[in-house]
Amino acid sequence: MFSATCVAPVNMALVKYWGKRNEELILPINDSVSMTLDANEMCAKTTITASESFKQNRMWLNGEVVTFEENARLMRCLAGVQRLALANGAHKFSLSWKLHIASYNNFPTAAGLASSAAGYACLVYTLARLYELPLNEELTTVARQGSGSACRSLYGGFVHWRRGSSADGSDSIAVPLAPASHWPNMHMLILVVNDARKKTGSTRGMQLGVSTSSLIQHRAKEVVPRRVKELMAAIESRDFQAFAEITIKESNQLHAICLDTYPPCVYMNDVSHAIVNFVHDYNETVGSLQAAYTFDAGPNACIYVLAENVPRLLAAIQLAFPNDAQQSVEYLMGIPVPPVELKNGLRDASIGHVNPNNMLKYIIHTKIGEGPHQLSDDKSLLIDGFPLPK
Amino acid sequence: MFSATCVAPVNMALVKYWGKRNEELILPINDSVSMTLDANEMCAKTTITASESFKQNRMWLNGEVVTFEENARLMRCLAGVQRLALANGAHKFSLSWKLHIASYNNFPTAAGLASSAAGYACLVYTLARLYELPLNEELTTVARQGSGSACRSLYGGFVHWRRGSSADGSDSIAVPLAPASHWPNMHMLILVVNDARKKTGSTRGMQLGVSTSSLIQHRAKEVVPRRVKELMAAIESRDFQAFAEITIKESNQLHAICLDTYPPCVYMNDVSHAIVNFVHDYNETVGSLQAAYTFDAGPNACIYVLAENVPRLLAAIQLAFPNDAQQSVEYLMGIPVPPVELKNGLRDASIGHVNPNNMLKYIIHTKIGEGPHQLSDDKSLLIDGFPLPK
Repeated sequence: MFSATCVAPVNMALVKYWGKRNEELILPINDSVSMTLDANEMCAKTTITASESFKQNRMWLNGEVVTFEENARLMRCLAGVQRLALANGAHKFSLSWKLHIASYNNFPTAAGLASSAAGYACLVYTLARLYELPLNEELTTVARQGSGSACRSLYGGFVHWRRGSSADGSDSIAVPLAPASHWPNMHMLILVVNDARKKTGSTRGMQLGVSTSSLIQHRAKEVVPRRVKELMAAIESRDFQAFAEITIKESNQLHAICLDTYPPCVYMNDVSHAIVNFVHDYNETVGSLQAAYTFDAGPNACIYVLAENVPRLLAAIQLAFPNDAQQSVEYLMGIPVPPVELKNGLRDASIGHVNPNNMLKYIIHTKIGEGPHQLSDDKSLLIDGFPLPK
Repeated sequence: MFSATCVAPVNMALVKYWGKRNEELILPINDSVSMTLDANEMCAKTTITASESFKQNRMWLNGEVVTFEENARLMRCLAGVQRLALANGAHKFSLSWKLHIASYNNFPTAAGLASSAAGYACLVYTLARLYELPLNEELTTVARQGSGSACRSLYGGFVHWRRGSSADGSDSIAVPLAPASHWPNMHMLILVVNDARKKTGSTRGMQLGVSTSSLIQHRAKEVVPRRVKELMAAIESRDFQAFAEITIKESNQLHAICLDTYPPCVYMNDVSHAIVNFVHDYNETVGSLQAAYTFDAGPNACIYVLAENVPRLLAAIQLAFPNDAQQSVEYLMGIPVPPVELKNGLRDASIGHVNPNNMLKYIIHTKIGEGPHQLSDDKSLLIDGFPLPK
């Protein structure tokens, strides 16, 4: 019996992935760039055990049984890693041995934060450890086939997912742009928003976008390549002003494309737009871009902000978005923030647009982080190949 | 003393005008197509009196004094009509005589429905009657310089505003596509929505869009020309299915461009999007496109619907958007609608998505209508050149 336990981080897109040119292989119509978030705040954790005695592949996700063999994406990831293992030849046990897999996300799924990227990255990374495969370009093409953005969660810091051009997807790979240590004070506040509306899933939203939006191809061909180049330069030179403007514009363009879809896909709500207004007002008040929002396929805001500016921004958010639970540990999660007194101008500016109470569910403070890593066997989620009792 | 009193209708864009290539002359970056609404439900009404004894030009809008001489757009319209009058030579009195102008909108400005189009169309049309000028292409170029979409309110039925290409704007004209009698059963329900957010005015929104959106030029050059052609064909053949799809897509693309603007301009709110969802659900339930929404620079929905489908659609709206004032004449305005019992399937489908109470402020039922016309002198808003007492 062999076993490996790993954690993998969440990543947040700066230049957005939206639209596939091949649904099965998950090949995107444009490049994307992301930042990996610290796994201490949010991560997926996976244990995989292989045993000659197992009768079938089995999986438990957050304690619930997953019908592994019927899930095409899971099967594709497993087959992909096993193909690499076969070519590599270094594995210590037969590829015919069945696997038991347990996986957990350490952050509330209710947050609507993309858990599939971390989850598939963790699955593929753990399989690679189990079969003693290196982390390389080929492995990112396997993770990509679980969930597109999962390929970006295989590296820390800033990551570039190149769309590639070959039909088999072999050049649609993730590559690290800069490690977390390059811009270690890059932090993030995640504002989790209450929302009850039905929404189109991102897979379906992308399909509809590609087939009906009359703007999406122009975006993919003309806009994104320029922005990727500009963002890479901004990251290279740690230019937060340029970084913030590109990030904000990219987020808004993603949602513009969603609105241009037929029927339209709407992921942001009035609270999301209140946050957008707040960020633009805040930046104007402080006289430079200190906060940069980005929204994925949901209403929650992820706000990039340098560590030294977090206390002031958070204080202004607390003023503009009052909450009954403002001081509780359940409301303010993640890296602790020292309290700060807002200066008059900023206080007045924030107070100018106080929103109704309790628009936010909670806030997570996190930062740039490293890629996946393996844990020691005592951190296993399986004992003798079966899930730990909860 | 000479006097003329006229009314002019509101028009609602199908292919949207968004973005100018010349701010001063109000020259658009793309063609637009609109439908003129019945002046019985909503109109601007204007009286203009010219007298040798008047010392200065004066104006009253909805009973309030307007500083006419300081308003560049008003002055441009006056100068434009006087230039045509000079060339025409038929006017009965000297162009040096000063004017007194009174104008009213017969619909609540709180509705957020573009009043400027009807207002400027009425001003220019009334000036033309006063100076005995014909309604022609040249006159539309004058109205355009008051408010771009005003040029479309000079005609009834369906109207095409051609962007033109000359630098002086002489070929940026409105032309009638089809009279109201061509498609007389084309009706509209206007759903007026409660909203309190601050918004960017449409003039500023367009400027920002042209200077910052990386999608707007593609829209203007590649998307709009195709849609204008398709919409003209749909109108010609009274094809409501094609008409509805183009109308919906155009509305959503306008708001997509607004979202792609930096900083983003957001005019629709959660209630607007609830209406969008309702319309798509409704069309799916009835099995064809019977309702087509369009939104301008505000949260209110204008829903195109054929007369025979109004009762059923309205009943479904009343179910999906319950209102405490549901049956009052202040809530349901305009053309009366016979009550109808919804069949089970539709009732169930609507009840599936009942929204919270009182999301709508009121509903106006109107239809396609004629262009401006002159009223008899006993309908004047001025007596001896001064406003009637309220």
